[in-house]
Amino acid sequence: MFEGPIQRLVDELSRLPGIGRKSAQRLAFHLLNTESADAKRLAQAIIDVKDQMRLCQRCFNVTSAEECVICRDVRRDPTIVCVVERAQDIPVLESTQEFRGRYHVLGAALSPIDGIGPGQLRLAELEQRIELEGITELICATNPTIEGDATASYIAREFKPKGLRVTRLASGLPVGGDLDYADAVTLGRALSGRSDL
Amino acid sequence: MFEGPIQRLVDELSRLPGIGRKSAQRLAFHLLNTESADAKRLAQAIIDVKDQMRLCQRCFNVTSAEECVICRDVRRDPTIVCVVERAQDIPVLESTQEFRGRYHVLGAALSPIDGIGPGQLRLAELEQRIELEGITELICATNPTIEGDATASYIAREFKPKGLRVTRLASGLPVGGDLDYADAVTLGRALSGRSDL
Repeated sequence: MFEGPIQRLVDELSRLPGIGRKSAQRLAFHLLNTESADAKRLAQAIIDVKDQMRLCQRCFNVTSAEECVICRDVRRDPTIVCVVERAQDIPVLESTQEFRGRYHVLGAALSPIDGIGPGQLRLAELEQRIELEGITELICATNPTIEGDATASYIAREFKPKGLRVTRLASGLPVGGDLDYADAVTLGRALSGRSDL
Repeated sequence: MFEGPIQRLVDELSRLPGIGRKSAQRLAFHLLNTESADAKRLAQAIIDVKDQMRLCQRCFNVTSAEECVICRDVRRDPTIVCVVERAQDIPVLESTQEFRGRYHVLGAALSPIDGIGPGQLRLAELEQRIELEGITELICATNPTIEGDATASYIAREFKPKGLRVTRLASGLPVGGDLDYADAVTLGRALSGRSDL
């Protein structure tokens, strides 16, 4: 539909998740019309991420060094580890400023339908860390989905017998939400997880 | 929130139109997790567009040559010119396969509020083409908005006295649409533009 280079850019952009053909066209023409320096800064940022970023040797967070900023921070408590599905979950948890331990990125959640069993998660690496780093508590911060719940249960079954405390993020009503709009499952969890006043 | 390179990529992505901070994060992590070759192909496509694409000397469509594919095509009728606001409107018109003339890209529509007067559109270039290329009809395919309508009216006022036929794309009900959902202005235009059966 377009001449070579612009069609190639539309094609590449429409391979990105959540970007359809129409959005890809709009983005391509935006880049075409934007300052050359701005567009090339985006291109360079993509190249830099691929060239410079790798996985933290300890927790598998993304980092440009051997270990990520969180693992390098000596003020953080190494005995509590928050287990997440993906590296992008870490900044969300960090934004609460409530957690001062370290993380462990599983890489995915258990999902037999997608062929993801315990062997596909970084559980062996977690077990090794538990032995080496004197970890005493695992907080399962997997998503509140069937897959995330199954993963949390699996972790509890595996590591509680070894004397670790294994906890799960609370499910319940979002702060500022409306009881009217809460779904039955969430409301059920909020009830069973109710706390004394 | 993220380490250097990934934060820079999030920042650059969120400068794109229609991409917020959350989408930018998702895209950045998608690019981080994707094959290096795929991500770099996107980066290269951006660089190529900035390095290789320029404006057609005749019609101001985007092209990688002196003139765009449409202006180079000798089978197209040079006497009918379809006037559009932006280069990205051309592929949409081409997809109808109903138009076999050439194009002229104005670059914008008249919009006094944004400081865009007739001097900011490529009207002098259009006038020059009319003299040189023996153009006999201008089809105003500007958007069916206040600005697009004003631009079409301006073009009609300027060029009709010179003996050209100046036409406007029909406004009316979209094919496959529902009368129930048509707005009053569109329906009014459909009425006034009704055709004999």
